[in-house]
Amino acid sequence: MKKLVTAPETVVEDYLRGLALAHGDLLDVHTNPNFVLRADRPALSGREPQVAVISGGGSGHEPLHCGLVGPGMLHAAVPGPVFTSPPAPQIQAATMAADEGRGVLMIVKNYTGDVMNFETAAELCELDDVEVASVLVADDVAVEDSTFTAGRRGVAGTLVVEKIAGAAAARGDDLAAVTALAERAAASVRSMGVALRAGVNPNLGQATFDLAEDEIELGIGIHGEPGRERVPMRPAKEIIGSLMDAILADFEAGEATAADGDVLLFVNGMGATPDSELHLCFAHAYDACTARGIAVTRSLVGSYVTSLDMAGVSITLVRLDADLLAAWDAPCHTPALVRC
Amino acid sequence: MKKLVTAPETVVEDYLRGLALAHGDLLDVHTNPNFVLRADRPALSGREPQVAVISGGGSGHEPLHCGLVGPGMLHAAVPGPVFTSPPAPQIQAATMAADEGRGVLMIVKNYTGDVMNFETAAELCELDDVEVASVLVADDVAVEDSTFTAGRRGVAGTLVVEKIAGAAAARGDDLAAVTALAERAAASVRSMGVALRAGVNPNLGQATFDLAEDEIELGIGIHGEPGRERVPMRPAKEIIGSLMDAILADFEAGEATAADGDVLLFVNGMGATPDSELHLCFAHAYDACTARGIAVTRSLVGSYVTSLDMAGVSITLVRLDADLLAAWDAPCHTPALVRC
Repeated sequence: MKKLVTAPETVVEDYLRGLALAHGDLLDVHTNPNFVLRADRPALSGREPQVAVISGGGSGHEPLHCGLVGPGMLHAAVPGPVFTSPPAPQIQAATMAADEGRGVLMIVKNYTGDVMNFETAAELCELDDVEVASVLVADDVAVEDSTFTAGRRGVAGTLVVEKIAGAAAARGDDLAAVTALAERAAASVRSMGVALRAGVNPNLGQATFDLAEDEIELGIGIHGEPGRERVPMRPAKEIIGSLMDAILADFEAGEATAADGDVLLFVNGMGATPDSELHLCFAHAYDACTARGIAVTRSLVGSYVTSLDMAGVSITLVRLDADLLAAWDAPCHTPALVRC
Repeated sequence: MKKLVTAPETVVEDYLRGLALAHGDLLDVHTNPNFVLRADRPALSGREPQVAVISGGGSGHEPLHCGLVGPGMLHAAVPGPVFTSPPAPQIQAATMAADEGRGVLMIVKNYTGDVMNFETAAELCELDDVEVASVLVADDVAVEDSTFTAGRRGVAGTLVVEKIAGAAAARGDDLAAVTALAERAAASVRSMGVALRAGVNPNLGQATFDLAEDEIELGIGIHGEPGRERVPMRPAKEIIGSLMDAILADFEAGEATAADGDVLLFVNGMGATPDSELHLCFAHAYDACTARGIAVTRSLVGSYVTSLDMAGVSITLVRLDADLLAAWDAPCHTPALVRC
């Protein structure tokens, strides 16, 4: 199980050190406890204070969340150990450091540990008079309840909620308005993924699950949690068709069934899937939308919400009303995502 | 050998279709013959004509070259079949379409097939009164001569030459000036890579080479050509140290030994290497520079010049004088690389 790792016990710190060295213009990386802050804080840059949008969770999903810190997106990110939620005092330290006096919105992926630790951190911060709100992301339509989750899992749609909340904060919205827009974004996003090969956990030195050489797992979680079913390997067109069927059925079962408005199609690599395959999958997902009369008007293709070096892909579909669209289209400048 | 592929014989076309659907605002994708053009051509956008910078070669290295087409970088890209040079008439068609009346600079990676086919295409275009210049990229310090190459191979440094030439074209430089700057960039860049696991060729359905479970290959080529040596797996710090030793020794053997000036450190993923490992490698490469008194002042971390889904990384080091630095820092807007 070969990986580019120097010492299993310092993978998070080694990653953060690289992030700090490569992106010192954008990021201010703290250790012990570990968190990443925007470098252009008001006192340093002279800009107006904003609501601080923060997120975090277990490591192993990079560039989420630390690589998405910067103007127009996250104010801070809190990386836990690999696949392990950061403890509340670590989240508290990041929240206190990120607050610019206008309150903090926590964007939390729906895993039991994250929900509990972010909630405890919020309570601790409120004792210090920092106003905190939170939005839960639970976009994975694959399964209800899972290894680490009650309800649906939060997966690649988290990036979309972070981008939209960050745009609202950047234009000066107050905490209630940033939170309301982030909640609408979280309600508008649906995702589902597939694994061709498990990632390797550097702490354990072994694959996070086993998959036969001719087998794939539909509906995989970003920690390798079980999905809907294991099926024999098949052409990408059929695999993407299955994911799209599940996502579109879920949209149609809910309220957001109107085919009008804008739609973002986001094809996300799980860590070891090359760009050519992601674009090939984008074409198939686009076709599935077209076949149902859905016009895709925005796109994102890349490996943003990964599961170590898992081979596979997830599809995220987002319905964007005019407000969400404007926030999605707003500029941002982070290590992993730049929009002019 | 599972891959997200629908039909092995149409992988390039399926990729191009996804690229067109995801990035229709930036790209104008042609098929039969296959090439990708900037969508903002002068007649369509009203901008002033520029020298057209084009590149291409065998597919399998995405996002290079097609994902690097757009303002400030490439005017056109010509994708051949997987690991196979595009034939001269295909390059000719792209060159003729890209020309804006100010001539075309071809950036060619040093592989025998590419060199021959681009040269033939240039001759054909000149018969049609299109002025053509070319710059060869041969940045891989690992080996002299190789499976497909006389001299050194062109690898990840190609992106740097494309970025710098594109910036010169964007500011209105004439063909001689764009070519001269691109030549200086090509002379200032050194790279070397390592493979942990071979990529899978979709046309063959098998790995491009064999590597034991405890073995890595130092100096690997981007088509899986042999490198300098196979060695047992070791910590990332040692692997990166070996690559940096080779690159820095090569700089020191040449003329570009001055430790003053700016230095770009580019850590490139080979297709299946996650973002966290790339940043971890960046930290080790940065340390190796610091230990030799070299101050890294620019950075790039990501999977830009890949070898299908090979697991591994390459390091590229570039010495930038003031002109090269200004061109590197200039804005660009492509599917894979955005600089504001």
